[in-house]
Amino acid sequence: MDRITIKDIASRAGVSVTTVSLVLNGKEHRIAQETKKKIIHIANELDYRPNQLAIGLITKRTNTIGLILPDISNSFFGELAKGAERKAAENNFNIILCNTNDTPVKDYEYLNVLLDRGVDGIILVPSGRGRDDTIPKCFTLLEQCQKPFVLADRIKVGDKYSGVTLDQEEGGYIATDYLINNGHRKIGCVTGPLGMLNAYLRYQGYRKAIETAGIVHRPKWVREGSYHIEDGVELSKELFQEGVSAIFACNDMMAYGVYQSAVRSGIKVPDQLSIVGFDDIIFSQFSEVPLTTIHQPAYQMGETAVEKLLALIMNKEEKNEKIIFKPELIIRSSVKDVTSER
Amino acid sequence: MDRITIKDIASRAGVSVTTVSLVLNGKEHRIAQETKKKIIHIANELDYRPNQLAIGLITKRTNTIGLILPDISNSFFGELAKGAERKAAENNFNIILCNTNDTPVKDYEYLNVLLDRGVDGIILVPSGRGRDDTIPKCFTLLEQCQKPFVLADRIKVGDKYSGVTLDQEEGGYIATDYLINNGHRKIGCVTGPLGMLNAYLRYQGYRKAIETAGIVHRPKWVREGSYHIEDGVELSKELFQEGVSAIFACNDMMAYGVYQSAVRSGIKVPDQLSIVGFDDIIFSQFSEVPLTTIHQPAYQMGETAVEKLLALIMNKEEKNEKIIFKPELIIRSSVKDVTSER
Repeated sequence: MDRITIKDIASRAGVSVTTVSLVLNGKEHRIAQETKKKIIHIANELDYRPNQLAIGLITKRTNTIGLILPDISNSFFGELAKGAERKAAENNFNIILCNTNDTPVKDYEYLNVLLDRGVDGIILVPSGRGRDDTIPKCFTLLEQCQKPFVLADRIKVGDKYSGVTLDQEEGGYIATDYLINNGHRKIGCVTGPLGMLNAYLRYQGYRKAIETAGIVHRPKWVREGSYHIEDGVELSKELFQEGVSAIFACNDMMAYGVYQSAVRSGIKVPDQLSIVGFDDIIFSQFSEVPLTTIHQPAYQMGETAVEKLLALIMNKEEKNEKIIFKPELIIRSSVKDVTSER
Repeated sequence: MDRITIKDIASRAGVSVTTVSLVLNGKEHRIAQETKKKIIHIANELDYRPNQLAIGLITKRTNTIGLILPDISNSFFGELAKGAERKAAENNFNIILCNTNDTPVKDYEYLNVLLDRGVDGIILVPSGRGRDDTIPKCFTLLEQCQKPFVLADRIKVGDKYSGVTLDQEEGGYIATDYLINNGHRKIGCVTGPLGMLNAYLRYQGYRKAIETAGIVHRPKWVREGSYHIEDGVELSKELFQEGVSAIFACNDMMAYGVYQSAVRSGIKVPDQLSIVGFDDIIFSQFSEVPLTTIHQPAYQMGETAVEKLLALIMNKEEKNEKIIFKPELIIRSSVKDVTSER
């Protein structure tokens, strides 16, 4: 059985296709009340559902949002997508999912595909791998098309676009400050890829906390990773040799790597080594030594990105703005207070 | 700047919109060679990209696939979605993501939305919460619309639909059999929700292995969970009291719960308790005691589901079939060989 079309309704009602179309689109001013009722009755009876492609061509709206993400299998982005999808569905919008594997050239390709599809707006988490000029090219394209868009997670605070993110620098600051308040002075830092803005800002927060406390910032206590667990394993070994008593790992995955490396080297957490992570992914509360970390409300960030995007779509006067969530320190068991030992 | 339309090309070329349309759609038999060249040249120069909505109305194809999932933030489904998206993009298809939170009524709602959107096909992981009649209603709707679809993960082996899954029963069997081969006789099982087919089959595999080895199947050694980590924590306590030496947890999350509960009770893994999980999620290789588990190739399952769906879309003669991946036992450190102790 094919789907019911307005032709079917027209033939049942004994009227023209145009008449049915006028009635179903609410433009039936000149049509007899009785005919109207009949058409609506038949449409309901046949469970008629309009063709969204045809509607899209007429209304210039498709009720679709493009969501461009680096990696949907990373639970942070999974949560963000879940929040975005929920909020979109609540408003009768659907999400077209695009996964870039953190490759900037894919951002541009997907943007073009989404524009061809006539999406009403786009949520973009720009790719972080490589430092090329593709991302500015994406912004230029979006501006030219006057297509509403919202950046998520990895945004610059200075630009004019709408964006949803966490205060990354503040997160790095409170994570490090907590270690300092627990008496630590030799604090290592395993950063994310510093070409990526959020990684850079988390590191800046670390540095600010260190310097505010009057501790000298030592580059040898800082190691650049790429947000993968293996970086935590490898880079922490070098930091152990430097004799640090605590490590701030700029995401939870790397914090797990640090923990694993400590266990293998016979270093007890938190007795001999304190660790703070960043993200608060689901495992962090269930791990052997529950991880003290910075909570990111990924689901809410996804919801908020869609909310802002829908406002931009619905209202051309809507202002661009940055929505910055506050980081929250979640204190669990991976940090020891060493104040009395100093 | 708005996007370039065929009107722009027509006015630049000094020809009618119809002429441009004929040329760009390859139906230009009666048009002068020179005019053709001119139109194509201008289209390229202006970087013209056709409106996919208009194309969809004409070709009756939208190059979109609907993907209905229970929970995109669960890393198993995240991987599956990633594989599906990759394979779709390779074939110039896009994925519309629908997240049901494991609620059957949402499956039906999303199906209708996707049909309204004119997707070319659907990949469905049916919801598992509740035991109502919504899922059969979904199948009826899909059959009526003659819309190609492929079921993923949670499928019945007996039905006539296309599906991609793991051999769940075999997975449960080899997990349990491995424990038996390591000398265990008192083997507990924490199952998933038994109303969900894959959970039921994993448990059946456990039972088959137990009975094949001539061990009496004791219902008191079996506890029904809902795939959440907390179930592993709670239900394992009851099994410890039964004096089991090993537990087969029907997913890795619950295996972590069992592990956590053992640690809290002062029970050493694997010395005093052996554990086998199911799924092989990313954390299982990095946990404190690396988990022995059944590997599910989620990414590949996503790719394969799209491959099969595209074959069904492209070729009406294509047969429905089940594609069943083989489970693989990944031996790590959570099982102790107790043969010599018996």
